[in-house]
Amino acid sequence: MARPIILGVVGDSATGKTTLTKGLVEILGRENVTHIGMDDYHCFDRTERAEHAITPLHPDCNYMDVIGQHLGHLRRGEPILKPVYQHGDGTFGRPAYVKPKSFVLIEGLLGYHTSELSALFDIRVYLAPPEELRREWKVKRDTTKRGYTEQQVLKELDTREPDSEAFIRPQRSRADIVVSFQPGVHDDPDHLDAVLTLRDGLPHPDLSAMADEEGRDAIPIEQGASERKLHIPGDIDRDRGAAIEEAIWEQMHFARHLRTERLGTFAVGTDEAHRSESLAITQVLILYHLVTAKAAVAVGGDDHVSRKQDAAPNVPSAA
Amino acid sequence: MARPIILGVVGDSATGKTTLTKGLVEILGRENVTHIGMDDYHCFDRTERAEHAITPLHPDCNYMDVIGQHLGHLRRGEPILKPVYQHGDGTFGRPAYVKPKSFVLIEGLLGYHTSELSALFDIRVYLAPPEELRREWKVKRDTTKRGYTEQQVLKELDTREPDSEAFIRPQRSRADIVVSFQPGVHDDPDHLDAVLTLRDGLPHPDLSAMADEEGRDAIPIEQGASERKLHIPGDIDRDRGAAIEEAIWEQMHFARHLRTERLGTFAVGTDEAHRSESLAITQVLILYHLVTAKAAVAVGGDDHVSRKQDAAPNVPSAA
Repeated sequence: MARPIILGVVGDSATGKTTLTKGLVEILGRENVTHIGMDDYHCFDRTERAEHAITPLHPDCNYMDVIGQHLGHLRRGEPILKPVYQHGDGTFGRPAYVKPKSFVLIEGLLGYHTSELSALFDIRVYLAPPEELRREWKVKRDTTKRGYTEQQVLKELDTREPDSEAFIRPQRSRADIVVSFQPGVHDDPDHLDAVLTLRDGLPHPDLSAMADEEGRDAIPIEQGASERKLHIPGDIDRDRGAAIEEAIWEQMHFARHLRTERLGTFAVGTDEAHRSESLAITQVLILYHLVTAKAAVAVGGDDHVSRKQDAAPNVPSAA
Repeated sequence: MARPIILGVVGDSATGKTTLTKGLVEILGRENVTHIGMDDYHCFDRTERAEHAITPLHPDCNYMDVIGQHLGHLRRGEPILKPVYQHGDGTFGRPAYVKPKSFVLIEGLLGYHTSELSALFDIRVYLAPPEELRREWKVKRDTTKRGYTEQQVLKELDTREPDSEAFIRPQRSRADIVVSFQPGVHDDPDHLDAVLTLRDGLPHPDLSAMADEEGRDAIPIEQGASERKLHIPGDIDRDRGAAIEEAIWEQMHFARHLRTERLGTFAVGTDEAHRSESLAITQVLILYHLVTAKAAVAVGGDDHVSRKQDAAPNVPSAA
């Protein structure tokens, strides 16, 4: 079997990592995806973190070296004995034996903390919603799903802010794709805009379908020195969104059998599922990289992804 | 720091692995030794083993691939996140972060199960007491320290016998040193003979001190095609034993600072500690290999140990 393709989905707590990943897992098929949360690699349980006054965002609170080790093993198609952190009670459970499937999706706080660690991912996504929106999401999730009060969550956010600044946000510069979901002109929480930064290190698909032939509904693309910035409006017409998605699907014609309607759904807190066109377009763009990298590896081009990445400018890790 | 030296102490349950290792840990200093039990790598807890009707001696009951992975990391001086099996209640605990110290001593049931795994050790010791003696030791230990009745232990020994035969005993052929403690002519349990098989794959010390100049008290050495067999009597005179040990210590003159009286002590069950001259000689022989391999690696001869082993005849793994 060709080696697994490793996708990183990195971002601060409650930036939408699971929402983004969920659609990808569903479309690729659970049987083809190994889904790992880096929180499993915490060194301290909840009680110890309180005693040491350390937040989970701090590298010293995570076995960073073991994460690198395990990523190396997974990348070579080897199994790992993965630690298990239980969010329910904040303790550690029995380790899990994990064999990498075709695709390995890794969500975490500190995946790109060092350039060495960062280099172990084939595709690096970083989630960067505006802080105000993230705080709102975190309150919704942690009060509905993790049993905290709103006051506790807000206090925790303040406690964590110095580590977010020092360790989380600087990682943005190492990503191939930066995703910022943000309120659009109508400030509609179900229809957020997606601002995507696509760095030239990855061979992105042809985006000419973004520009509408009649000049209407064109997605603004801002060209930078080594990246492009796309602004996908949250209120984009569904047919227009579908046409853009279709144009990307056409560039992964060998994977057309995966084409379903499962992209773009999301839920916040315990709300029922919604659908977002900007989320769907973002997911299909990431999916493009997953299947293209897999195809390249399958036909013997193991270096396809990493070679392109090596050619990327060496972005300093400053925030 | 030079890479750690890895000693394997392999043998069936209750063959004296911990007794042999204990003196080595004490003389090298706890601060210089990482001591690992391979039982931590069981896949199934006690309840699951009963359900699956599988014994811990079966390779399928152990994460053999992860053991190899972790040995590779330790050998390169890298840390591991080691699973933890709790003999007390037969369940798994929180994993432990382990950084290899100067010496890594690994006790286990299946360390030489494959040639690939076996090759990861610098020094391979296999313990092979007569089965009758081993059963006696297992009953003593498991009834005094692990809360079983004698009947339970005897039944378990019978259940395990097919796996001992199929998986444990064949490993003997892969060892550099086979140690068989066994009753001597006086059948004194405190003064067991040590029959040592020293395979030519390792550069053993000069053993001429074993032959006494006056022809009395000579240790019989049987020369084979690619090994020597030493029979150290359990009732060997203490001064004579000390002289043999001294002759080996002289060949590790760079490690004379380690010389103490801590070798040769043992306990069975909850008995107080005894001293065995044949155990002390066995331990000092193994110590010789540990410090010599370490010295060789320290002066840049990283291949010293493994090169010698490569030159060893390829012993088939049949029992």
